[in-house]
Amino acid sequence: MKLSNLSDLYLRDLRTIYDAEQQLLRALTKMADAAANDELEIALRTHVDVTRNQVERLESIFHSLGQSPLGEACEAMEGLIAEADELLAADADDEVLDAGLITAAQKVEHYEIAAYGSLRTYARLLRRYDDAALLQESLEEEKQADERLTRIAEGFVNTRALT
Amino acid sequence: MKLSNLSDLYLRDLRTIYDAEQQLLRALTKMADAAANDELEIALRTHVDVTRNQVERLESIFHSLGQSPLGEACEAMEGLIAEADELLAADADDEVLDAGLITAAQKVEHYEIAAYGSLRTYARLLRRYDDAALLQESLEEEKQADERLTRIAEGFVNTRALT
Repeated sequence: MKLSNLSDLYLRDLRTIYDAEQQLLRALTKMADAAANDELEIALRTHVDVTRNQVERLESIFHSLGQSPLGEACEAMEGLIAEADELLAADADDEVLDAGLITAAQKVEHYEIAAYGSLRTYARLLRRYDDAALLQESLEEEKQADERLTRIAEGFVNTRALT
Repeated sequence: MKLSNLSDLYLRDLRTIYDAEQQLLRALTKMADAAANDELEIALRTHVDVTRNQVERLESIFHSLGQSPLGEACEAMEGLIAEADELLAADADDEVLDAGLITAAQKVEHYEIAAYGSLRTYARLLRRYDDAALLQESLEEEKQADERLTRIAEGFVNTRALT
């Protein structure tokens, strides 16, 4: 792979997060199906819709770049999802599974916060301000999703899960 | 795997981050060796020392739990490091490589922010307040490392990398 300039790196990283989002769409639905707590299930299903919007934003950026979104596999997201799958396959009580699902989802959000933050900075440096605005929107959504999960975790984990 | 209660999940996730930190110790050194920018190289080498302290904090928690730190592989960190390795193997100009290294390191920091944040919350729920204080220290260090990398990225990326 040749990375001669920031545009090359920008395109590589856009393709990587595009692949990550596609993987995540499938995984989030499985995680929502497994969640016992209603509030958690709703938060995860809402994030499926948010993720679809983020995919569309990326597609609009690829369109304006005149580039295909395909060509990179996101190994980090594969690993994050493998950890979540291990949890789904475990013999876990409802509250424990939910606590683990929140952690798994927050690790995903944080991957995306780092990815969108960097991409937004690259876009600004490349003076692609329309891209930067779209990427900033996705970044804000990921931060909000992370905060929502923290509130659910603080609110719902009860003494049954502790024993 | 059986996860009957929050203690089981806590132990599983402690072992996962312990494995992640071990992997990271090796990867960060390689990333620091590859960095062209002095400030970035220093930040990455400093984080090797920070990571060693974090490993010691985890070992002290395992000691007080009377448990081995071994037994979990962190697939997410494997994926994050694979992404960084791909970058190191690319034919990249210095500034582009450095920009990519910052992003790779920030993705790692964010994984750890999510991991330590959840572990700290589990420790509080389990009333293991000494553990929670240690985990909070590591969490704060990761947030500081992330902010430092953002400052370096904003300061150093120059027009040479953009062309």
